[in-house]
Amino acid sequence: MKVSAVLIFVFTSVLLLSCNDNTISSDSSISSSPKKSIQTTEYAMVIHGGAGTILRENMDKETENAYNEILTRVLVEGEQMLKNGISSEEVVVKTIMKMEDSPLFNAGKGAVFTSEETNELDASIMRGSDQQAGAVSGITTIKNPITAALAVLNKSEHVLLSGNGADKFAAENGCEVVEPSYFHTERRRNSLDRIKAKEDLGTLESSNLDYKYGTVGCVVLDKKGNIVAGTSTGGMTNKKYNRIGDSPVIGAGTYADNSTCGVSSTGHGEYFIRYAVAHDIAARMEYKGLGVTRAAKEVVMDKLVEKGGSGGVVALSKTGEIAMIFNTPGMYRGYVKPGELVVKIYED
Amino acid sequence: MKVSAVLIFVFTSVLLLSCNDNTISSDSSISSSPKKSIQTTEYAMVIHGGAGTILRENMDKETENAYNEILTRVLVEGEQMLKNGISSEEVVVKTIMKMEDSPLFNAGKGAVFTSEETNELDASIMRGSDQQAGAVSGITTIKNPITAALAVLNKSEHVLLSGNGADKFAAENGCEVVEPSYFHTERRRNSLDRIKAKEDLGTLESSNLDYKYGTVGCVVLDKKGNIVAGTSTGGMTNKKYNRIGDSPVIGAGTYADNSTCGVSSTGHGEYFIRYAVAHDIAARMEYKGLGVTRAAKEVVMDKLVEKGGSGGVVALSKTGEIAMIFNTPGMYRGYVKPGELVVKIYED
Repeated sequence: MKVSAVLIFVFTSVLLLSCNDNTISSDSSISSSPKKSIQTTEYAMVIHGGAGTILRENMDKETENAYNEILTRVLVEGEQMLKNGISSEEVVVKTIMKMEDSPLFNAGKGAVFTSEETNELDASIMRGSDQQAGAVSGITTIKNPITAALAVLNKSEHVLLSGNGADKFAAENGCEVVEPSYFHTERRRNSLDRIKAKEDLGTLESSNLDYKYGTVGCVVLDKKGNIVAGTSTGGMTNKKYNRIGDSPVIGAGTYADNSTCGVSSTGHGEYFIRYAVAHDIAARMEYKGLGVTRAAKEVVMDKLVEKGGSGGVVALSKTGEIAMIFNTPGMYRGYVKPGELVVKIYED
Repeated sequence: MKVSAVLIFVFTSVLLLSCNDNTISSDSSISSSPKKSIQTTEYAMVIHGGAGTILRENMDKETENAYNEILTRVLVEGEQMLKNGISSEEVVVKTIMKMEDSPLFNAGKGAVFTSEETNELDASIMRGSDQQAGAVSGITTIKNPITAALAVLNKSEHVLLSGNGADKFAAENGCEVVEPSYFHTERRRNSLDRIKAKEDLGTLESSNLDYKYGTVGCVVLDKKGNIVAGTSTGGMTNKKYNRIGDSPVIGAGTYADNSTCGVSSTGHGEYFIRYAVAHDIAARMEYKGLGVTRAAKEVVMDKLVEKGGSGGVVALSKTGEIAMIFNTPGMYRGYVKPGELVVKIYED
């Protein structure tokens, strides 16, 4: 490990120790007059790398360090971009590209395998300033699916493209093309083999849902007050029938509106679609006057828990309030704002 | 025309003359205590066959009669089922199947053509009692896409299946399979040819969006108080890159929750996705205490008009209040409840 990484670790460890709540409120949870609230921080950025049964006792130190390192690195580099006046759109895309390139996450390189032993990738991005959005599902040949989603946002009249058409559009619009085998990793193939073996034996327990997680996401508020949210995933191990989860579904996996908040989801996607989780958080802020932490808690800790939907969200409000809410044992996550950088994995 | 159809027409004409508003309120627009509201009608059913530039002066009498006839017929038959205690789920599916089978609508037989001269069909259904949902996109070989969506709802752990996987799942689960050519109609092929010719000449005006419409939808409240909503479409003429519109997106094209309302959308799908139109109507009812008509008007006539998104929705609340709201010149639509049957095409 290089010296710089070690320094980052020391910094991170101090912050980890200093923070024992998974949410940060920089404004009140309920704002009586949301229209008047103002940006209370110069910039803010929040990320996740998936929620699930992530327990300290099951994690070896090397793996834990690797997660802490990349989460910290993308936050440090993101903060630098934001300080330099780079837009939230660019920061979200560059951050998610780095997470897609890491085999640690179920997105881009390291995505899980479908039942047919392929990788089918989904991603989406939404811009809070004009609520334009772009999304792709079932990508198989674009190295960074988030760049395909960005191309749809900026260069297509459509919002959601799928399958071969999505690959074709992205390639025509300059996204880097790779062979489908680029996404393969030994670890994820082993996961598929294990699940298929259990499926064959009839011992696959629906309560063990960890093969469904690992999505990455990022929400950024830049100096201009623009919120952008993005999400990228390989979906669910052993998925069949070209299943589409919540990640490319605007309003479920991703949502952004400068007048309320930006949200990126991770978890059991079917629940996030059925309950329009990302939009519901924004709606509770707009119509009930809630702060983003309270709104996210109502949806993730009350509604989803009641219905049986596991997972989490990261979100930030137009004022810079950050929420990292999950109803699973852990979620890879972190945020940065002036003077604060936090990276966390477990519940506490 | 048979005598029964003539009689229905007379009945319909009287109702057409007697109704000059496109919404029916059976309860107040704002209910101060929505939790206490009760079903004020034994059953209710509302349908649409697409919104767009549907003008009396451009419509020949024969075509107008054909639309009036099928809209009336599915409502009469739907009412009979509801009187007999058939569930909202079954009534929605059977009603949409009949509209899919009619070449008048852009759904099932008569779907529009993609840029590659194929037909790619989308459909979704959501059940308000448990908020389970099923959806398919890019179907090419299932005669009635709404039956594929129903199969996903009832027989899959997933919510949204796409492309060949969706066809395969539906076929394995008993949906009727047809050759892709089953969906071809001369009228829709001519539309594609006209649009491609304009595209080649550079004279395709983005303001002429009529090639985007024709979706069908149905929302039903049955005797047990269960709301179900469904939507089916062929999408947009000349669509490219396996574009997915709002129809198979839960929260955008379709939404149902027994505690608020059911919604089916039609229009420029990209806007309906970005603004999570169907969920937003339910959210305004739940969090702002609005009635379904007021909530639908805020979304379709205020928000969508401001943003430039054209189209409409049909919706009904748990009390049986019906809304048919659109910001285009016309929408094929109708509803039935005890003692009332209305079918309309133009603004009034």
